[in-house]
Amino acid sequence: MTVAADLRNALGDIVDVTDESLEAARADRSGHRSAGRPLAIVHAESVDHVQQTMRIASSTHTPVVIRGAGTGLASGANAGPGEIVLSTIRMNRVLDVRPDDLLAVVEPGILNAELNAQLADHGLWWPPDPASRDISTVGGNIATGAGGLLCAKYGVVRDAVLGVDLVLADGRLLHLGHRSVKGVTGLDLTSLVIGSEGTLGVVVGATLKLRRLVEGESCTLTALFPDVRTAAAASAAVTASGTQPAIMELMDAASLAAVHAHLTMAAPSFGTAQLTIQTDGPAAAAEADRIAETLRAAGGMVTVTSDAAEGERLLTIRRSMHGAMAALGTTLIEDVSVPRSALPAMFDEIGRIETAFGLTIPTVAHAGDGNLHPNFIFEGPEVPAQVWSAADELFRAAIRLDGTLTGEHGIGMLKSRWLAEELGQDQWELQRQIKAVFDPLGILNPGKVFDRA
Amino acid sequence: MTVAADLRNALGDIVDVTDESLEAARADRSGHRSAGRPLAIVHAESVDHVQQTMRIASSTHTPVVIRGAGTGLASGANAGPGEIVLSTIRMNRVLDVRPDDLLAVVEPGILNAELNAQLADHGLWWPPDPASRDISTVGGNIATGAGGLLCAKYGVVRDAVLGVDLVLADGRLLHLGHRSVKGVTGLDLTSLVIGSEGTLGVVVGATLKLRRLVEGESCTLTALFPDVRTAAAASAAVTASGTQPAIMELMDAASLAAVHAHLTMAAPSFGTAQLTIQTDGPAAAAEADRIAETLRAAGGMVTVTSDAAEGERLLTIRRSMHGAMAALGTTLIEDVSVPRSALPAMFDEIGRIETAFGLTIPTVAHAGDGNLHPNFIFEGPEVPAQVWSAADELFRAAIRLDGTLTGEHGIGMLKSRWLAEELGQDQWELQRQIKAVFDPLGILNPGKVFDRA
Repeated sequence: MTVAADLRNALGDIVDVTDESLEAARADRSGHRSAGRPLAIVHAESVDHVQQTMRIASSTHTPVVIRGAGTGLASGANAGPGEIVLSTIRMNRVLDVRPDDLLAVVEPGILNAELNAQLADHGLWWPPDPASRDISTVGGNIATGAGGLLCAKYGVVRDAVLGVDLVLADGRLLHLGHRSVKGVTGLDLTSLVIGSEGTLGVVVGATLKLRRLVEGESCTLTALFPDVRTAAAASAAVTASGTQPAIMELMDAASLAAVHAHLTMAAPSFGTAQLTIQTDGPAAAAEADRIAETLRAAGGMVTVTSDAAEGERLLTIRRSMHGAMAALGTTLIEDVSVPRSALPAMFDEIGRIETAFGLTIPTVAHAGDGNLHPNFIFEGPEVPAQVWSAADELFRAAIRLDGTLTGEHGIGMLKSRWLAEELGQDQWELQRQIKAVFDPLGILNPGKVFDRA
Repeated sequence: MTVAADLRNALGDIVDVTDESLEAARADRSGHRSAGRPLAIVHAESVDHVQQTMRIASSTHTPVVIRGAGTGLASGANAGPGEIVLSTIRMNRVLDVRPDDLLAVVEPGILNAELNAQLADHGLWWPPDPASRDISTVGGNIATGAGGLLCAKYGVVRDAVLGVDLVLADGRLLHLGHRSVKGVTGLDLTSLVIGSEGTLGVVVGATLKLRRLVEGESCTLTALFPDVRTAAAASAAVTASGTQPAIMELMDAASLAAVHAHLTMAAPSFGTAQLTIQTDGPAAAAEADRIAETLRAAGGMVTVTSDAAEGERLLTIRRSMHGAMAALGTTLIEDVSVPRSALPAMFDEIGRIETAFGLTIPTVAHAGDGNLHPNFIFEGPEVPAQVWSAADELFRAAIRLDGTLTGEHGIGMLKSRWLAEELGQDQWELQRQIKAVFDPLGILNPGKVFDRA
């Protein structure tokens, strides 16, 4: 009997082998696709469905790719021939919201934005806000250790999860972490699972650490600079000044021009780069004033508004980046992160790589935390060799500047060949051994993260 | 040749076999002692010393107990017969402070308070503030995943470390984590090492995430309540109200009376419990007003001050708890943590256990994060069986309330027999296997954490 038939016998209708579904599971938002269709998709609706699936996978040694909304950018959830796709998108309930304990217990398939809409009714929010928040799941956010725009002030996923329920490769269910905000009982396996990209187990539930909605008005600033290096130096000066923006986004000239064109706005002057900064909380206005001063001293043309709608309009320019890039061709979105003071140097490196390879690399950055998203644009589904060579230079430059390959998107399939270079051979080997403790048969997301392409 | 002689040959004078030093290494601040003296203490002054020690330990299969200042409360660093003590207390340099990147690179032996004194010159601080901060090391804080008074607002060690350098059991050196604030490259081994209590490797360096010193004046409130349950309910009401104290400490009647006696202050009325709360930042005064209102509505007799010296005096009462307990006898300080809303219920359980066992259990709590320190007092060095039975009830009660055995002190030797009960047998076994990946010979802190007493 085939594995698909095993699954169908055990699980019935939730096993999906339609061409359309199987085809869709080959790709994520990176534009990259697997070599062919997976053998089946299980649309799990309960922990028991997940456990049954993993038991069948283990007993038949069949690889499993865990998938949420498929919005990843590193091909961590792309599924190929011979693989089962275990989708948790239907497990989308909010099981508990506790305003008195500032926590929520959720299933993995709920969309980030949908969760936050529900939490807002309680005056609460979950801070991680990846640009994909309207379309990405909390489970996917946990699997990648996602970040977003608000991280410098409000933290990343790692800072906002108290516990996860994890189904192991063999189908056993573990409850990791705590409902208490403090807890040091044994090893911190919750943190180990965050960002593990489907290699350690299936996240079937999470206890999330919440915040209360920030009171008061926010202020939004934009500052235009003659070139990206000046803008990067200005953002570093803001960090060094001691103010704490909630959001600080940098767009280089190519990004800004592309978005203006995409939104049919008047073109910015040649070379112009932009910072968009938002402050919030009780000191929002005072902080905005101090930041404006720093930006002007750094050569910026500054506008400030405390009007919420106008602030949202200004941020829309930054949020339209993904659409503007997609309109130009296939996009490989990179995700290097460096210490904040190294932002200007990293932009120098990007300029050097642009010249060396004859490419334009439109780049936006979460400047408040030193995380850059350089975009490579090309025709067709395959990443050209020249683009990989340029990306290779980019990764090496980030590592030289004490940075990292990936700030918030993960390694997936697209960066696995560089992982050992950053970790060092000894650490890489140790990490593989830890994965093997969770997944001795190696059936969880093979070919990703720890396999060199 | 003996192991001590091996060490002396390789490392010379830094190998200490004096009776006084060996005797001191048997105990920590828990009052508990090992069965006898270890075989030698290596006072490592460099990473190379640590690597050489671990190579000798590995080649001779000799157990190693890593030790900082010896201020632990779970006997995680107590060393016994046949063991090498590897002390990192002399590795106490601050290697780099980067105000522009809000990070510092330090060696493990520096004292928490000494580090913060140096950081203050740069307008910076490292938030974890265990009550032992004057005498405990940053390495020890990392090994236990320490917390403190300011955690509810400013986080615990887990939130404040970007990377660690780790020497493995076989002497290899790994660089874990990043200097960038974002980074999801591979598994988060930095978080795995935090709170691992010397079972995975030797922390020989750390990159710490800093904050700027909080600007503005702080406000301090005290509130007296007729009984501890009312005080606990009031603290839960403060959390539920949406204000965010920097500090919120609860003292039950027995604690308050003991500290008053210790400081030769007038005795509080019978049964009186106290909350001490501090607010800081730009909204300090407004938050203090709102908190005072909540406390009064909950039945508290409230005083508020914005005078810094007076505020420090009020906090001194709380900070004198450890001394007051030590003056009464040998102390077993427990460390359970529960969801904040469960604080009143946990105090009910403590009252029940006091009655059942005929004991008084003076208890203080970091009420802002639901972390309680019940104190058992007895004569002599050995914990009486009746005290362990009462502690056993206490742990079970915390777990029933969705809490945990230990919020910030760790498992060490004193709680290892309860670890599997909280983690579940499957997770306990998995954690042991992960430890074995780092330490296949089992020479790092045997008898602690994962060994059942």
